[in-house]
Amino acid sequence: MIARNQSLNFIDANRQNIIEMLLEFLRFPSISTDKAHHDDIVHAAKWLGNCLLQAGLTNIQILPTDGNPVVYAEYNQSGSSVPTILVYGHYDVQPPDPLEQWVSPPFFPEVRGDGLYGRGASDMKGQVIASIAAVSAYIKYAKHPINIKFLIEGEEEIGSPYFEKFLINHSSLLACDYVLNPDAGMISEDIPTIVYSLRGLAFFELIINGPKSDLHSGVFGGVIHNPAQVLCDLIAGMHDSDGRITLPGFYNQVRTIDSVELQEMAASPMDDSYYLKKTGAPELWGENGFSPAARVGARPTLDINGMIAGFTGTGSKTVIPASASVKLSMRLVPDQNPDQIHQQLRQYLEQHAPQTVKWELRYLGGGQAYIADRTLPATQALVKAMQTTWNRSPVLKREGGSVSVALDMKKVLGVDSILTGFGLPDDNIHAPNERLHLPTWYKGISTLVHFLYNLSEME
Amino acid sequence: MIARNQSLNFIDANRQNIIEMLLEFLRFPSISTDKAHHDDIVHAAKWLGNCLLQAGLTNIQILPTDGNPVVYAEYNQSGSSVPTILVYGHYDVQPPDPLEQWVSPPFFPEVRGDGLYGRGASDMKGQVIASIAAVSAYIKYAKHPINIKFLIEGEEEIGSPYFEKFLINHSSLLACDYVLNPDAGMISEDIPTIVYSLRGLAFFELIINGPKSDLHSGVFGGVIHNPAQVLCDLIAGMHDSDGRITLPGFYNQVRTIDSVELQEMAASPMDDSYYLKKTGAPELWGENGFSPAARVGARPTLDINGMIAGFTGTGSKTVIPASASVKLSMRLVPDQNPDQIHQQLRQYLEQHAPQTVKWELRYLGGGQAYIADRTLPATQALVKAMQTTWNRSPVLKREGGSVSVALDMKKVLGVDSILTGFGLPDDNIHAPNERLHLPTWYKGISTLVHFLYNLSEME
Repeated sequence: MIARNQSLNFIDANRQNIIEMLLEFLRFPSISTDKAHHDDIVHAAKWLGNCLLQAGLTNIQILPTDGNPVVYAEYNQSGSSVPTILVYGHYDVQPPDPLEQWVSPPFFPEVRGDGLYGRGASDMKGQVIASIAAVSAYIKYAKHPINIKFLIEGEEEIGSPYFEKFLINHSSLLACDYVLNPDAGMISEDIPTIVYSLRGLAFFELIINGPKSDLHSGVFGGVIHNPAQVLCDLIAGMHDSDGRITLPGFYNQVRTIDSVELQEMAASPMDDSYYLKKTGAPELWGENGFSPAARVGARPTLDINGMIAGFTGTGSKTVIPASASVKLSMRLVPDQNPDQIHQQLRQYLEQHAPQTVKWELRYLGGGQAYIADRTLPATQALVKAMQTTWNRSPVLKREGGSVSVALDMKKVLGVDSILTGFGLPDDNIHAPNERLHLPTWYKGISTLVHFLYNLSEME
Repeated sequence: MIARNQSLNFIDANRQNIIEMLLEFLRFPSISTDKAHHDDIVHAAKWLGNCLLQAGLTNIQILPTDGNPVVYAEYNQSGSSVPTILVYGHYDVQPPDPLEQWVSPPFFPEVRGDGLYGRGASDMKGQVIASIAAVSAYIKYAKHPINIKFLIEGEEEIGSPYFEKFLINHSSLLACDYVLNPDAGMISEDIPTIVYSLRGLAFFELIINGPKSDLHSGVFGGVIHNPAQVLCDLIAGMHDSDGRITLPGFYNQVRTIDSVELQEMAASPMDDSYYLKKTGAPELWGENGFSPAARVGARPTLDINGMIAGFTGTGSKTVIPASASVKLSMRLVPDQNPDQIHQQLRQYLEQHAPQTVKWELRYLGGGQAYIADRTLPATQALVKAMQTTWNRSPVLKREGGSVSVALDMKKVLGVDSILTGFGLPDDNIHAPNERLHLPTWYKGISTLVHFLYNLSEME
């Protein structure tokens, strides 16, 4: 316990230095969606390599990819008798638009009250610095430290297009037992959170073509099947009155949620009132018979992401549109396969689209869901660390969104990711005035120190 | 017969001048749906007044209304022993969107082959110029001309909102025995057409509001009722599997079609192959048990004119849209009432819209259907004129479109409208590449000359 307390005390004593380090990191406008910021990306990667070096890590490498470089570092001198954990992170950020809504400039970070404001403060430069600070304090004092590797990429915000290839090319260097991915967030300030599952995705565009051009709805109304009407009929038919999706075979591969998980989800703080407050929707909706947490995390969904037809300007125009189109996507759960979903949607359309129109279906991409074993020692080490720091057990949840890198690492490196993080739902990530809640962040650093010690002691 | 032939010869000799006059008229982007074009509206009205003056008409007036001005002119020196015919027209046009689909710019009209292309060429600046040309040639040579008045309004394309009030305020000036309204079209190039009935209209915008802002479809998919999904469900429910409209009481006021008319409609040249050819639709559609001519002319319909929700750009964006909206309209038949239809739609929404969303219904305007006596002398004068010009009897039909002014004039001035015109179904009215078929248009001008002489001789 002496070493652990030394590490924790070191963190306490160095709070101001850690904050300064984060402020420096945040000043790089390392925006990956905009090629004009390529130099900022490179500078941020170099700065990060140096930061890891000063934190006591070795074998620092700025590794090229087909896109932005990956920063690698390790503490790898404990041999194969101890586990190796790989900390995943990203140093790229979202664009700051709309700029005029920021109180302080996005790349001149500022502490106001409990908040540190700047682009990337929460997503996820703050989480990266928290991890580095915790590892630094751990390796400084721990008697028998585990092995630790850092992999900080620069293209998460554009979907990590070259990440899988990078993993394949560096699989020996990156060999590990677990991945710690602090890019997920907390349910609220009081509820530490671990994510053990992510939904997959299948994204489509469907176009309905009717008459060869827009028609006058008086002259032709009554003989032409309106493509927008056909689109609505087809969309309406994709759900039944229980909120279930009607594509043939859609639920065949859906893994049953076991009773323990079902109970946990029913008791989740992410309940009706949570979602009503977050969204402002008049009432919730969803598949009958499942709790909100189950519906978002463990059941597949189908949503319209956009649709357009005919005249959408101000006032009235009496046309029958020549065509109508919709973007729709399904969130998938284990063990659904996006390619099978594509075929099911095609089959549904073949069965239900009338002969009065032609249709065209485009598959715009997707990926499978991800689910990790919740009994992993590393997960238990993190649960215990959170109990220590927050005085309560974390919520283990299934996340409704998709994190493709977790799936890539499972596929290529064969390891599970423990997804966590110390960002909050009202941190305005991807929005103006992104914020890091400093009291939560300090707790997060302590949690990570405990996690590393717990893992050392368990193995 | 000498005067008649002189008039016809005059038209022949002046073809190029008449075309030039039309080209000039078409260059005004007199779009009534967009307030930004108010100056263009005013300029078009003034130009038209001058055009009528040069055509030999007198008492030219640009009369203000609560909206766009009305252009008035007359040839009114023959006393009360001859009939007075009022020629109705409109100088406003539909917006030209989508602009990129026009071969030549909408307001830089161009003659290509037999077609004159430009917004308003067929609907209805071409018809207005044809009428002025015919009247000009008639009054120049006729020995005992009938009285003629012109009333050309500027808000037909937005439903003539102030037209009824205008008629009331100027009922003495506008007193007449018949209205000639050349805003209807021909069934085909070979079939001259007279319309004795028009459908009414009720136009709505429906907005579905769900969450307070767009949401991430992963994080919230499964608990939020997607407003675009709700919209599709509501639209889908508005028709049953027989193609009938399900709004409560929708068919209660629909006048039964008598057996003579039903037989005429079943034998109409506007049959399946006609509509398939005109529209390019893969197959026709409509209410079970009625011929195409009956479905378009004598039965009510409901069409989506436009709808929009969420992300409609290139690629994918996984949002649940905060709202979705649709523009929809019903074509009405005798004796349906648009205000009742409005209430029926509201009632349908109250019964079927889920509590998971808020909805807002906007009534953007409408009017009742119109039906005229088919045995009027002026109708017979036009039938005979068409027999002369086309060597065949015209088809007397019910038109699917709406001309609210015909109803207003019946109500305020107590007179029937003879609806005709020389536009063709493939003129792309209200769509890109609107066209006027010049050979048909020339025949139309001759027909109107014969009509005026026939009417002079009948009375």
